[in-house]
Parts: sequence; C-alpha cells; structure tokens
Amino acid sequence: MKIKIRPARKEDSKEIIRLITELAKFEKLTPPDSKARQRLINDAFSKNPPFKILLAECDQKIAGYAFYFFTYSTFLAKRSLYLEDIYIIENFRNLNLGKLFMKKLSMLAYEKNCGRMEWIVLNWNKNAIRFYKGLGAVEMKEWKFFRITL
Amino acid sequence: MKIKIRPARKEDSKEIIRLITELAKFEKLTPPDSKARQRLINDAFSKNPPFKILLAECDQKIAGYAFYFFTYSTFLAKRSLYLEDIYIIENFRNLNLGKLFMKKLSMLAYEKNCGRMEWIVLNWNKNAIRFYKGLGAVEMKEWKFFRITL
Repeated sequence: MKIKIRPARKEDSKEIIRLITELAKFEKLTPPDSKARQRLINDAFSKNPPFKILLAECDQKIAGYAFYFFTYSTFLAKRSLYLEDIYIIENFRNLNLGKLFMKKLSMLAYEKNCGRMEWIVLNWNKNAIRFYKGLGAVEMKEWKFFRITL
Repeated sequence: MKIKIRPARKEDSKEIIRLITELAKFEKLTPPDSKARQRLINDAFSKNPPFKILLAECDQKIAGYAFYFFTYSTFLAKRSLYLEDIYIIENFRNLNLGKLFMKKLSMLAYEKNCGRMEWIVLNWNKNAIRFYKGLGAVEMKEWKFFRITL
C-alpha cells in the first residue's frame, strides 16, 4: 500500500467536505451547513488561508485529513502549531496514519521554529487520548478553556 | 480619569515587556528571557505580526494589556478571536478595564466576522473565572487541552 501525507489542493474540496462532515458526526457536533462549507473551501484556497490542510492518501484514495494553523506563545515568544482537526476514515485506521500526520506536523512546526504543538480533545474520546499520550503529549489540567459565542 | 484602549506602538515596548513579566509572575509561569523579549518585540512590530497588542491607558499611564490573534473554527468556517493574555496592573483594578478590553475585543471579533472568542484561564484564578462567567463566557468542560513541547 502506497501511503502519502500531502497538502490539500482545490480538487480535493469534495473529499475535504465529506471528511469534515464525518468528523463532526463522530464528535457529535454540528457539521458546517452549506454556506459554511462554501466559506471553508473559499478560505482554504484563498491567497492568505487562515488554516492549512494535510491529506493522507492510501493508494491514491483519501484516507484522512488534518487542519492546522499557527498561534503564538507570548511567554516563549515563539509560534505554536495548533491542530484544529485530525480524522482518519474508519477503514483506514490501524495503518499508523495518525502517527504519520503527527510526525509531518511536528516537522512543519520545527521548520517554523515553533515552541509547542497544541490541540484539544473531547474527554470521552479515550482512543485519541491514549494515542496522544503515547506520543508524549501532556494534558494541561490546570487550564480551563472558555468560549463566548458571538 | 481619562481611560483609553488603544493598539500598542513600538515606543511601548519597554512597558509591554514589564507587563508580560508581571503577568508571568502572577501566573507562576516562566517569563520570557532576554532573547525571547527581543523576539517578542520584533514579532509584535514586524510586517505580518503573529499577534496583536492592545493597551489600556489611564491618564496617559499604561494600566494593562491584552495580546490576541485570530484562529479558525472549521465547523463554523469562521475565524475565532483568541485571547492569549490579558492583564491589568494591580493599582488600576476596579476601574472596569477588564470589561473595556473585552468589549473592544468583541468589537474587533465582530468586524472580522468571527464566530467565537476563546481563551484559557488557570483553574486557581477564581477572580478571572468569575469575571469571565459574568460576561457570559462558558467553560468548555468536555474538552481536554493537550500540548507537546518541542
């Protein structure tokens, strides 16, 4: 099986929308509606995209994706790589694609001289939590995450 | 007393470093070292700054600051305003500067068509948590925050 992690192209738009909808369903969250889907694709392939997309390809089939962007730690005075979404289609699990994604992301973070990689995970997603801890990630238990919906 | 929230200028660099060092001390975290302080100022006033700084001025004295940048929600397909740091010097508390900052930040988020404002807060910082809840912010208890230090 030929496996590749590569940046998404505009021709991947349909697949990207299919994957993000699957992830939202898996996370029991609201997937993007039709307007949001259009906005997402426009933003992704705009001149200054606010996020970047990696795709995993197995024998030329799309098997998963990761969305990321760069944030900033003022105390380190370095960028952080923030992993917004990561998802592997069920049929393609157990192929180590998650590890491949994280390896590629850490290389990208290294190139940008980042101090950290950060992300959030749903507390019931035990498989993901086990996976992240296995990579050496630490749960930042002393921090509470707040949101205002506008 | 004349109160103003305004973007930081390069001439504010010394004050910015003083404030961020105070915040790190308050949060019992490591403040930026001398190299990081230089990087922070270079980044803040570079051509494409990775974060923005607001300052509160009371009778022309710097009274506090906020660092923010824009992240992205793929499910909303909208930017979020992420509040990285907010700090008011002790002598200037009880002047409603926190509320003024949050109001200004929500206006900036509105202008950028953001769907959310997000931030993290230390679990022992009860005053801050009470303040945020009073503004209608919600603690996202179902999410765990992970980090890999590079």
